[in-house]
Amino acid sequence: MADFKEKVLNLHEKYQGKIEITSKLRINSKEDLALVYSPGVAEASLAIKENKEDVYKYTSKGKFVAIVTDGSAVLGLGDIGPEAALPVMEGKALLFKKFAGVDAFPICLKTKDVDEIVNTVKLIAPGFGGVNLEDISFPRCVEIEERLKKELDIPVFHDDQHGTAIVTLAALINACKVVGKKLENLKVVISGFGAAGSAIARLLRKASVPSIYATNRRGVLSKLKENDPMVDRFLEKGIVDSYNKKDGKLEDIIKDADVFIGVSVADVLTKEMVNMMADKPIVFALANPNPEISSIEVKKTKAYIYATGRSDLPNQINNVLAFPGLFKGVFACKAKQITEEMLLDASHAIASLITKEELSKDYIIPSPFDERVALVVSKAVSK
Amino acid sequence: MADFKEKVLNLHEKYQGKIEITSKLRINSKEDLALVYSPGVAEASLAIKENKEDVYKYTSKGKFVAIVTDGSAVLGLGDIGPEAALPVMEGKALLFKKFAGVDAFPICLKTKDVDEIVNTVKLIAPGFGGVNLEDISFPRCVEIEERLKKELDIPVFHDDQHGTAIVTLAALINACKVVGKKLENLKVVISGFGAAGSAIARLLRKASVPSIYATNRRGVLSKLKENDPMVDRFLEKGIVDSYNKKDGKLEDIIKDADVFIGVSVADVLTKEMVNMMADKPIVFALANPNPEISSIEVKKTKAYIYATGRSDLPNQINNVLAFPGLFKGVFACKAKQITEEMLLDASHAIASLITKEELSKDYIIPSPFDERVALVVSKAVSK
Repeated sequence: MADFKEKVLNLHEKYQGKIEITSKLRINSKEDLALVYSPGVAEASLAIKENKEDVYKYTSKGKFVAIVTDGSAVLGLGDIGPEAALPVMEGKALLFKKFAGVDAFPICLKTKDVDEIVNTVKLIAPGFGGVNLEDISFPRCVEIEERLKKELDIPVFHDDQHGTAIVTLAALINACKVVGKKLENLKVVISGFGAAGSAIARLLRKASVPSIYATNRRGVLSKLKENDPMVDRFLEKGIVDSYNKKDGKLEDIIKDADVFIGVSVADVLTKEMVNMMADKPIVFALANPNPEISSIEVKKTKAYIYATGRSDLPNQINNVLAFPGLFKGVFACKAKQITEEMLLDASHAIASLITKEELSKDYIIPSPFDERVALVVSKAVSK
Repeated sequence: MADFKEKVLNLHEKYQGKIEITSKLRINSKEDLALVYSPGVAEASLAIKENKEDVYKYTSKGKFVAIVTDGSAVLGLGDIGPEAALPVMEGKALLFKKFAGVDAFPICLKTKDVDEIVNTVKLIAPGFGGVNLEDISFPRCVEIEERLKKELDIPVFHDDQHGTAIVTLAALINACKVVGKKLENLKVVISGFGAAGSAIARLLRKASVPSIYATNRRGVLSKLKENDPMVDRFLEKGIVDSYNKKDGKLEDIIKDADVFIGVSVADVLTKEMVNMMADKPIVFALANPNPEISSIEVKKTKAYIYATGRSDLPNQINNVLAFPGLFKGVFACKAKQITEEMLLDASHAIASLITKEELSKDYIIPSPFDERVALVVSKAVSK
């Protein structure tokens, strides 16, 4: 582990940043300069001044995603600030490029004020074709995303919410095929109701999952107890089912559940709880790096399918399966919004890559390096 | 000309933007992913959280310039807005990379409010090592630059002011050698007192030029008449000499001037005025694309040295000689500020590239493609 740490730091120090700007064209003469800069470039500027939509034709706007963070909920590290978030955002930019050829640039904001974040993103929006919100803490992330979606004319996406939801649903679609169940009949329990948990609930409901209970630090969500305004909204809208007791705990709702989805902390799911679940339990233990139930413990239960966020185990539920192709598709069709239908379509596209013959309890989701993923997601989204 | 316009637009449409993001390293395996992104990247984030200065060690911050504009004074096109400014800013990013290997990214702001611009730049600053303000109208540009210099801990530079000033002084240093005059004895007349004119005055004064008069649309600057607050500041500080009459015009101050520097509009300098100047007049007619006196007209006068901003004439005074090397140097020495001394040193460095033997009235300034330029500027600045 010390070796790994050293390896990471050495690599980062060697390159001093993982991304760079490159020119798509060559400048070797005064004539080249005159075309790409003064005086020639004035023609492109004038064309855009005449018709603002031409900014998509003559500039990189329609190809660039702003990766926006305030550094308040970075990986599992919490509120580490915008500078410490930068290595992660650079990494994200690499993934956008590597997996879908999408250009993305980190914008690390020195504020956690919702109004300031919204306003700043609006002010820098002219140069970007889309916004990927990243690692902003819940519930501020939901409010920021909703306001930006309303106030901007470019697509806005919060990866920690919807990227996770897309890939989780994709894995669930295939898991259901393996265990012979239908989304329309599932009882799902979600542990953790932050950015990821709330978005997963929303997308599962959209995918016709009838029964969804969730827990957060204060227990099982229920209309009977006072919660914070954001949680109440999800209950009011019926996105999450309200538990009929005030003081419910995970063990109270896990009975007969077909699916457990953990986006919370290590070790909250016990062997006993798994064994209380319905036949052929599907366990997605996505807490990183230590899942809600470890791969060793889960083997001692009746769990049938086990997925995590880890790259060293089968069935890795990894956002990188979603966001690169999603923005590729959104840019291709010049969409102004990312709709829930697009998210659903992206999930089905990812799931569809594994044939009936290939499907197994240890292969419900494609590898991040499956080159077909970004293509099918992009196609699904842009149709 | 129609052909040229078509060529420019075709080129811009073909590439849909001139810049892209590339990865400095390869990601071909899960192991690579684990180093550059989750979980490994957490080590770099934690190191920066512990010691914020490590952001220079482990990220691209110390290598990236934000090219910030509000699109209010773009090229000679005026206030065309942030979208129409984008092709120019992308071009600028190309020049940064081409001429000094510096990474720069366009930030086009949807506001012209000084407070909002200052605040936005401060909020996005964590991800950048420096700020290059660009094409922001006078006098707002001066105020924005001054406030950012005060409130940010990364170097701030307004190219339209100081880039132009550096290269103009470099050319003037060499022009003086050609005509056998000294900076310490010059009478200089500046036509146009906006971003460029005011910064040129400031740098010439710093370089010990004793007599500097300037005109703007309202005539020769003078304490005797009411001017705007920004102009008054320059007069009060003695950066520009105050003319002793209220209603002075260019022809009133051009008599016996050694140097004319035009950063205004086409054709304001007549043959008669040039002939009123001192012996061996130095005429820098930098209005683009049409200079204050054309190359044809100036030949009919006693002008000895003639420089313009045009690439199709000798002695091109081009900012690209300054800003790339300047930021390269500032980044190399991790300077927190760009000082007037650095600007002066940059001018001398550029001028020094032409040997006494090479110097001539048609060769007072190096070509933008002279690869030594960014290197000597960078060295001069970082020392």
